[in-house]
Amino acid sequence: MTYDFRSDNVAPPMAEFLDAALRNGASWMDAYGEDSTTAQVEELLADIFEHEVAAFPILTGTAANALALAQLSNRFGQILCHRSSHIYLDECGAVEFHNPGGRLIPLDGGDGKLDVDRCARVLGAADDVHQLRFTALSISQATEMGTCYSAGEVEKLAALAKRNRMAVHMDGTRFANVVAASETSPADLTWRSGVDVLCLGATKGGVIGAEVVLFFDRHQARDFRRLMKRSGHLPSRMWFLAAQLQVSFKGGLWLESARHSNAMAARLGTALEAGYAIVPYHPVQTNMVFLKMDRAPCDRLRQEGFNFYTVGDEKDGILARLVTSHATQPHDVDRLADAIGNAARGVA
Amino acid sequence: MTYDFRSDNVAPPMAEFLDAALRNGASWMDAYGEDSTTAQVEELLADIFEHEVAAFPILTGTAANALALAQLSNRFGQILCHRSSHIYLDECGAVEFHNPGGRLIPLDGGDGKLDVDRCARVLGAADDVHQLRFTALSISQATEMGTCYSAGEVEKLAALAKRNRMAVHMDGTRFANVVAASETSPADLTWRSGVDVLCLGATKGGVIGAEVVLFFDRHQARDFRRLMKRSGHLPSRMWFLAAQLQVSFKGGLWLESARHSNAMAARLGTALEAGYAIVPYHPVQTNMVFLKMDRAPCDRLRQEGFNFYTVGDEKDGILARLVTSHATQPHDVDRLADAIGNAARGVA
Amino acid sequence: MTYDFRSDNVAPPMAEFLDAALRNGASWMDAYGEDSTTAQVEELLADIFEHEVAAFPILTGTAANALALAQLSNRFGQILCHRSSHIYLDECGAVEFHNPGGRLIPLDGGDGKLDVDRCARVLGAADDVHQLRFTALSISQATEMGTCYSAGEVEKLAALAKRNRMAVHMDGTRFANVVAASETSPADLTWRSGVDVLCLGATKGGVIGAEVVLFFDRHQARDFRRLMKRSGHLPSRMWFLAAQLQVSFKGGLWLESARHSNAMAARLGTALEAGYAIVPYHPVQTNMVFLKMDRAPCDRLRQEGFNFYTVGDEKDGILARLVTSHATQPHDVDRLADAIGNAARGVA
Amino acid sequence: MTYDFRSDNVAPPMAEFLDAALRNGASWMDAYGEDSTTAQVEELLADIFEHEVAAFPILTGTAANALALAQLSNRFGQILCHRSSHIYLDECGAVEFHNPGGRLIPLDGGDGKLDVDRCARVLGAADDVHQLRFTALSISQATEMGTCYSAGEVEKLAALAKRNRMAVHMDGTRFANVVAASETSPADLTWRSGVDVLCLGATKGGVIGAEVVLFFDRHQARDFRRLMKRSGHLPSRMWFLAAQLQVSFKGGLWLESARHSNAMAARLGTALEAGYAIVPYHPVQTNMVFLKMDRAPCDRLRQEGFNFYTVGDEKDGILARLVTSHATQPHDVDRLADAIGNAARGVA
Repeated sequence: MTYDFRSDNVAPPMAEFLDAALRNGASWMDAYGEDSTTAQVEELLADIFEHEVAAFPILTGTAANALALAQLSNRFGQILCHRSSHIYLDECGAVEFHNPGGRLIPLDGGDGKLDVDRCARVLGAADDVHQLRFTALSISQATEMGTCYSAGEVEKLAALAKRNRMAVHMDGTRFANVVAASETSPADLTWRSGVDVLCLGATKGGVIGAEVVLFFDRHQARDFRRLMKRSGHLPSRMWFLAAQLQVSFKGGLWLESARHSNAMAARLGTALEAGYAIVPYHPVQTNMVFLKMDRAPCDRLRQEGFNFYTVGDEKDGILARLVTSHATQPHDVDRLADAIGNAARGVA
Repeated sequence: MTYDFRSDNVAPPMAEFLDAALRNGASWMDAYGEDSTTAQVEELLADIFEHEVAAFPILTGTAANALALAQLSNRFGQILCHRSSHIYLDECGAVEFHNPGGRLIPLDGGDGKLDVDRCARVLGAADDVHQLRFTALSISQATEMGTCYSAGEVEKLAALAKRNRMAVHMDGTRFANVVAASETSPADLTWRSGVDVLCLGATKGGVIGAEVVLFFDRHQARDFRRLMKRSGHLPSRMWFLAAQLQVSFKGGLWLESARHSNAMAARLGTALEAGYAIVPYHPVQTNMVFLKMDRAPCDRLRQEGFNFYTVGDEKDGILARLVTSHATQPHDVDRLADAIGNAARGVA
Repeated sequence: MTYDFRSDNVAPPMAEFLDAALRNGASWMDAYGEDSTTAQVEELLADIFEHEVAAFPILTGTAANALALAQLSNRFGQILCHRSSHIYLDECGAVEFHNPGGRLIPLDGGDGKLDVDRCARVLGAADDVHQLRFTALSISQATEMGTCYSAGEVEKLAALAKRNRMAVHMDGTRFANVVAASETSPADLTWRSGVDVLCLGATKGGVIGAEVVLFFDRHQARDFRRLMKRSGHLPSRMWFLAAQLQVSFKGGLWLESARHSNAMAARLGTALEAGYAIVPYHPVQTNMVFLKMDRAPCDRLRQEGFNFYTVGDEKDGILARLVTSHATQPHDVDRLADAIGNAARGVA
Repeated sequence: MTYDFRSDNVAPPMAEFLDAALRNGASWMDAYGEDSTTAQVEELLADIFEHEVAAFPILTGTAANALALAQLSNRFGQILCHRSSHIYLDECGAVEFHNPGGRLIPLDGGDGKLDVDRCARVLGAADDVHQLRFTALSISQATEMGTCYSAGEVEKLAALAKRNRMAVHMDGTRFANVVAASETSPADLTWRSGVDVLCLGATKGGVIGAEVVLFFDRHQARDFRRLMKRSGHLPSRMWFLAAQLQVSFKGGLWLESARHSNAMAARLGTALEAGYAIVPYHPVQTNMVFLKMDRAPCDRLRQEGFNFYTVGDEKDGILARLVTSHATQPHDVDRLADAIGNAARGVA
């Protein structure tokens, strides 16, 4: 038996999404996103975000981010992002490839979050022909450390961006977890705080594979479908991506799933702290728990059947990253907490 | 009621594929193509093609073609293709985008097929720093006109390519229809005739959305997964694409579907010729029937509920393109044949 | 002794340009094009073209064309050009490289000239996400065959372009020869006829190496210097390119040089026609003479010390291309005419 | 009267180079770098570097660096460089543009120099499809701070690179100054220490505008001329760039010029330290002197006619950058030293 805490994308999809596929699959549909399901998703999201949106279903988060940033930036554009961001570390240069001549500027900041002062420091130089221009700022919400920006924090970053004529992109792979955790409305966390484009994830919430790029100003989405087509992201049966999004966003399933995975992470954090005085390395705000841990207890946990990733190295210290999902069971979390407690003791 | 002959991708997927999704969806799977289903697809295809293959499931034909050609060509590469080819006409510049600095060279040729002599004419110039180099030749099998190359024809084109140090790419969106029509083995139509890479389609055969890029020399596939990742085509739940391919290729469903759609097109062609002395514009070899037709009868057919595309313009003549699929019913074909016969008479 | 008729760029520069370099070279100058000489060139050209211009000196015609088209087009842009154009045949894909995702569409047309009807035929399709968009039309003035468009012809092409929301680019490597030949004003041949950008050559007129990109609407030149910088075309001692242009355009030297080379080509054409009844393949309108000629007389001419290029092949026929320049001497032209006459007779 | 210490590229070229232009300019030459002067430059450099080289004259340092790195790296390549390097800060993204999909990784390090340990820290990760690959390491010799790497330091960095299968690029805009300063042979500073490609500058040494890209393994230079052509860097009269290089490298003029500019910087540093106890911020090793200085004395110096750039900002402190050249006169240096001494006193 294996208990899998590697990522929310190794979990099986929720049964609801597979059912949705079956229901939709029986009819003839217009191709390339001109079907009624795709249109309905746009309407659904306009309701949820309390604002007109242009919505584009897309297979992967990498494609969503790279295309959204290619749309916002331009051929001399520099994009501010956190050094730990997925676009910088885990997408094999997708942003730069889709935006030829552009550049990502990675910045440090505690708990995976961009810091307004550090951002302000790199901006503000005179426009100079020898240098690229700052065109966009990218916020990961939740961050790669599972932490969240408050609406106020997003607002401050976005205000800085606007003062410097930059657009604001939000990588919302785990945006659902932030909404679920923060009790803040999707609108407050995005356009009301100055976000121009949200790459809203559904895959990690349990659909088979679908994200959606949301522009809050339809005008900014001009030709976006051509960016999709050119990169091979305009599937003929687009409705299949849309069907997953529809089920996810229609009845609140997206938040239900996020609430569960958040709760599982919180349960793990609490159990470790209460039972074993082990304090997570980053605050547990969504569905991730990071623990500073030596190689030996990590190996031992794996031998006991727990699967997870580590980040960092011997020199700076290793962090075990434990990710929960819609499919994580409470008793598995409890078993993991105990195993960690014992492994830590055994080593110490 | 609408009878849809627009394309094989507006038809609903076959029930079998939806079932396959359900069956696979219940378990935890490794992400990004490292799952067992993806591995099994590779084995299945090695069997079918009687040769070791490196197989990469991919969402769309546009992505499959563009990435395969980016892999085969290089930064100074020119790619020979037919003027009617999908990569030239219908992919919004995807090949050039994914292969920066490259160029497509479109050539004419009867019934949508490349002509060895015309190809030879543009090749053979000395290597000159002022010019791009010819690096690949792309064959559409079946063509956009629904016609097929024989294995012998492929062999001659490939031999020409090899003499000029060019790789051979096959856009096999409707390769299944060719195999079904020609009674030639997949191996004879590809690597035995000199094809290096086949973009093998399944979407138009009735899966939800999945193609597979096949390299017959694993060495030529080096870093192909990075090309996929960088373009956003390495989904975490890759197994869902693989599951569709698995069902398609395991029990011969891919050929069964193709045989049916071919038969429906043949039925249409025969009915028109026998009943109304209407001869299709191109030979009906797979699942497409092209008819020279004025605007008026086209409009009349549409009013009667038949949906289809036209190509060309008033000046050169309009061709109605009628595409059949796994879901096309014989009685709909018969109805269409009669409607065409009447529409043509009515006008004449 | 060799008589060189290969190209106007193998001739030595005119002494005046070398002198200009010396005169300018003695002082300290602002770098990167912010010097006074570069500014003066812009003023000079505004006078000559009777219109405000934004003028950017640049080392090569390839760079000038590629950057100008990158500026005019965009990431989904298709550019109409003649099949014989330098941008299509002789710049190693520079246009596509500098304009990632763009495409050149080569068209046929007599004597190297674009034909309005042929252009109109490929335009006019509905804007479709699967296809690139037409964004620019490129006119070579003079053409690669040494022929000229009249102002009226340019106007018709440009009007067609404007109706299709396309910008108009003119590759004016030998624009001087056209002005000299046509007795039409630079203004009439460009902005008054609808040209947006002119890549005005000076190299082939006898400077060491300098072209200048002229935008007739300064607004269209926004960020052009960044395109130059990014491609390595913003040299610190930009004034050295500007100095050559200044000498060329100040006292009419550019037209003087062009008149001489035109006269030499006319002399050759006349001598061949009058003395040997040999009629050039294309009308001799600027500084090029094309002769249909077999391999044997070509070889014989070369053995006699005449150096020149041929185009075409055995199958379609070989054309000898004879190019005159500011440095071509009348007696060399006469010698060449006689040698051709004899070579042709010898073979026949 | 202005005393210009902004950069070595605002100084006028040395008279010798202008003379060279005149001498070469009188004859007919083969175009596009196939002339004898270009060939002679290659031979000259082979002698100076005691090694076979492939040598490519090129107009600007930006082009030289970007094309050399495009040649060494590949489409998934990451290039290590110093955070202050010209390729990262002052070339408007040229490296990324010419190498689509690549990325620069800037690292900190004292006095503008890369640090082996910091480099080692970012390397060594497993090859992972989600990440770019490290393909090259770029060393600025001299650095942007005017400091030098010893041959031993280059060797250590190159050895690290080789262990990680990375190529080694040297931005040698001011390589002459390093050779002049270090009394180390060009060979020891480059290929004997593991450098693969040197972008050897001549512009800042006083030619009009010419750099040369040197590959120490001809095999690594394959298709480099196509990279040049495609970017517009293969001028027809290439011999004019070569002529400047020839004069520079033939009689040792390159080192003579560098020795003079180094001596002028040393004179400035010594005068400031001895006369005013002002210690330069970075060690003065070539032709640059950096001084920590407030805005007020900077302004005062400018009012007195001294022209120079500053780097940094109020918050972190401003550095005045004073650059000497072949044209800098000792009495101007002395005047500057006194003016700085007085300005500093006046403020304090």
